[in-house]
Amino acid sequence: MESIDIEKIKQDDKDYVLHSWAKQKQVNPKTITKAKGIFFWDDENKKYYDMCSQLVYLNVGHAHPKLLEEFKHIGEIPISAPGFATASKAELARKIIDVAPSNMAKVFFANGGADSNDHAVKIARMATGRYKIFSRYRSYHGATFGAGNLSGESRRFTVEPGLPGFIKFDVPYLYREVIDFENEEAATKFYLDRLRNQMLYEGPETIAAVFMEPIPGSNGVLIPPKGYLEGVRKLCDEFGILMICDEVMTGFGRTGKMFAVDHFDFEPDMMTFAKGVTCGYSPLGGVIVSEKVAKYFDDHVLMTGLTYSGHTVSTQIGCATLDIYKDENLIEHAEEVGKVLASRLEELRGYDSVGDVRHIGLFAAVELVKDKTTKEPIIAYGMDYGKDKVGLMSKFVGLLSKLGFYTYSHESSVIIAPPLVITEQELNESMDLFEQALTLFEKEILFADQAVKS
Amino acid sequence: MESIDIEKIKQDDKDYVLHSWAKQKQVNPKTITKAKGIFFWDDENKKYYDMCSQLVYLNVGHAHPKLLEEFKHIGEIPISAPGFATASKAELARKIIDVAPSNMAKVFFANGGADSNDHAVKIARMATGRYKIFSRYRSYHGATFGAGNLSGESRRFTVEPGLPGFIKFDVPYLYREVIDFENEEAATKFYLDRLRNQMLYEGPETIAAVFMEPIPGSNGVLIPPKGYLEGVRKLCDEFGILMICDEVMTGFGRTGKMFAVDHFDFEPDMMTFAKGVTCGYSPLGGVIVSEKVAKYFDDHVLMTGLTYSGHTVSTQIGCATLDIYKDENLIEHAEEVGKVLASRLEELRGYDSVGDVRHIGLFAAVELVKDKTTKEPIIAYGMDYGKDKVGLMSKFVGLLSKLGFYTYSHESSVIIAPPLVITEQELNESMDLFEQALTLFEKEILFADQAVKS
Repeated sequence: MESIDIEKIKQDDKDYVLHSWAKQKQVNPKTITKAKGIFFWDDENKKYYDMCSQLVYLNVGHAHPKLLEEFKHIGEIPISAPGFATASKAELARKIIDVAPSNMAKVFFANGGADSNDHAVKIARMATGRYKIFSRYRSYHGATFGAGNLSGESRRFTVEPGLPGFIKFDVPYLYREVIDFENEEAATKFYLDRLRNQMLYEGPETIAAVFMEPIPGSNGVLIPPKGYLEGVRKLCDEFGILMICDEVMTGFGRTGKMFAVDHFDFEPDMMTFAKGVTCGYSPLGGVIVSEKVAKYFDDHVLMTGLTYSGHTVSTQIGCATLDIYKDENLIEHAEEVGKVLASRLEELRGYDSVGDVRHIGLFAAVELVKDKTTKEPIIAYGMDYGKDKVGLMSKFVGLLSKLGFYTYSHESSVIIAPPLVITEQELNESMDLFEQALTLFEKEILFADQAVKS
Repeated sequence: MESIDIEKIKQDDKDYVLHSWAKQKQVNPKTITKAKGIFFWDDENKKYYDMCSQLVYLNVGHAHPKLLEEFKHIGEIPISAPGFATASKAELARKIIDVAPSNMAKVFFANGGADSNDHAVKIARMATGRYKIFSRYRSYHGATFGAGNLSGESRRFTVEPGLPGFIKFDVPYLYREVIDFENEEAATKFYLDRLRNQMLYEGPETIAAVFMEPIPGSNGVLIPPKGYLEGVRKLCDEFGILMICDEVMTGFGRTGKMFAVDHFDFEPDMMTFAKGVTCGYSPLGGVIVSEKVAKYFDDHVLMTGLTYSGHTVSTQIGCATLDIYKDENLIEHAEEVGKVLASRLEELRGYDSVGDVRHIGLFAAVELVKDKTTKEPIIAYGMDYGKDKVGLMSKFVGLLSKLGFYTYSHESSVIIAPPLVITEQELNESMDLFEQALTLFEKEILFADQAVKS
């Protein structure tokens, strides 16, 4: 593209493109005209800190020179269908297994997070001969019919009436738990006891898999209480159920470890991934399976597939992406700079509108409330997706954007998940902006009435 | 990749990659080391006519210089999330609407054929407020849970127990119809009467959409009888049901027209596409919706989405691909050279093992039989996918491959769908190989016993 005619782009976009999760009349998208590292510039040359890595995928940052260079080598190897062995597909599978938990053996490639989750459900059912699938409320696994039925939030209603055998259980969400637990261990015991009962009620011998984001992302970075994930693992072992971790958001360094499960003392049977594997430079997702699951398919047909499984270009970009994590020590960097983010976030607890902050590595959420004592949320449950986005949270995200802090919210939580390449200084600068927005929000919007009154 | 170590690739592939639709122990993939136009070469430097365009997607042929060149310009525009307007996304949507039927207005982008079909089901349900979805036996729409439940062949059993409200009806498959119709019109009347009855039995006011491949591809290029698709359109109009055409295989010139629906006298309400839109150079799919459907979402939230909707790279490759169709007159060329294919295929009817040939443009199937009079199929229904592929059809496809004619089979049909760039001479050369294989197959395999006896 020689020159960019912004008005023409916007008119064509308005006339011809259907945008996700929105009333089309309300869609008024910006265009990114320049981007580099953690920054992008819009069509008015306004600069933004990309504090959600677009959609939590751009871990290596915008316009990474090694990835742009890699595209120049496309065509040196032929693009071939899944039935062939290709250098990039084989190499990427090996590289993923190298960094995955030690029990992991093989990779099935798909196009993105959603379809990877669909394929994972099918693989689990085939490998176990069982059909029920457990997943959690307040989870998001994608918008295809399998992933949508796994999901435990309002976006799943669009794939209902739902799939038989998809069962939901409660996620530990301690900030809003009605029980006041003495400590994390007590919470863990409570949730595990209830889950074990539910498994018994559903018939453990009918349950193929428990599906979970180890740390639910879209629904507000819900950090599990101590021992919880290990406890779920034990329940799965007790009943011969596969434990499947959706690492679509958390995988590839987001939490300061290669995978979120690396923070804990257990190994899942399967993991799904997407986003960080190519950082969105080319669409790619997949399912990692343990040696035990892989072995099942030695002599049983893997009855699933897709045209672009292990796409040559996408896996080539994936190989280059994994090299970048390693060569630039990005995972370790994320862990280090994550400490700075943690400390800045903990300070936010002093604000009247900040109910909770949750964070691990460079994966964080700030949950806002109307009242700190009652914990009244800014948005009632289920009222953001599918409804007009003209409420208080939109106003806050609007303030952030105006100050050059780009991110999005879900219910009453603001997601903070910058590219892993962010420096300590950039992080502090961006969090200064966040605090400016928070101060303005409280003074001019949330507590404006009260200010007048007092 | 500086040099290619074939043994290393194959070992890594064997060790780390899960292959679709196969027992992994039986997977023994070749590697494509060179490819150009309609040809590719394997790791033993054997040359093949790619007579199925990999998986019926490589319409512009292997290593098209303009597409490889296009990859060199990746990075000149920033890669951004679906919420932004981008030049390539807006331009591709406009280009698709330009070549789509005149009632089409907007495009929702997804990653591939399967997830596009999932999103299309959701869109249809939202736009109509109804939930039942009609689709046909002997159809294939993909392997995600929505697309899988749409599908009417054995690969769908992996997504069962199925989605409530997904109803199947019969596809016109005249070669194997038990009724001996006087003419095509009589067949059309028969199928439409039955479909109308089934709609009444299911409650027309509960039916959101009728989903169909206008010409079922994977299941053997089943050409509809005269007036059939127009008749389905009328039934849909009568009951306010959306008609959705899956053009994943047939779209972008495969049948000698831009879309398969262009051969007929009707316009669908929605169309899904993938494959030919980028010819597999980058993963991309989507849903085209009519102005009427698009308008619904002006004021209603489009409750579906995905991280890579309108991916910057994929849509940029899509723009270049659509330019190639136009600049090289590929659609017209496919129509012309399709006539040569048709004439070669009709000649095959002289062979004792050829039960039927079906063709339109460069989209064809040769259905083999054990006995021409009884029409006994080579493979009984449902016995290929999920079962050992060591039967007669595998042997025939093996013979073809040995002679350098690369394609695949489904049940008793062999698919012939070369890149649209194939010349008349190349087509004749490849069909000569096909006939050689057929002669060998009959003499040495299929009728070998009979030869000994006589």
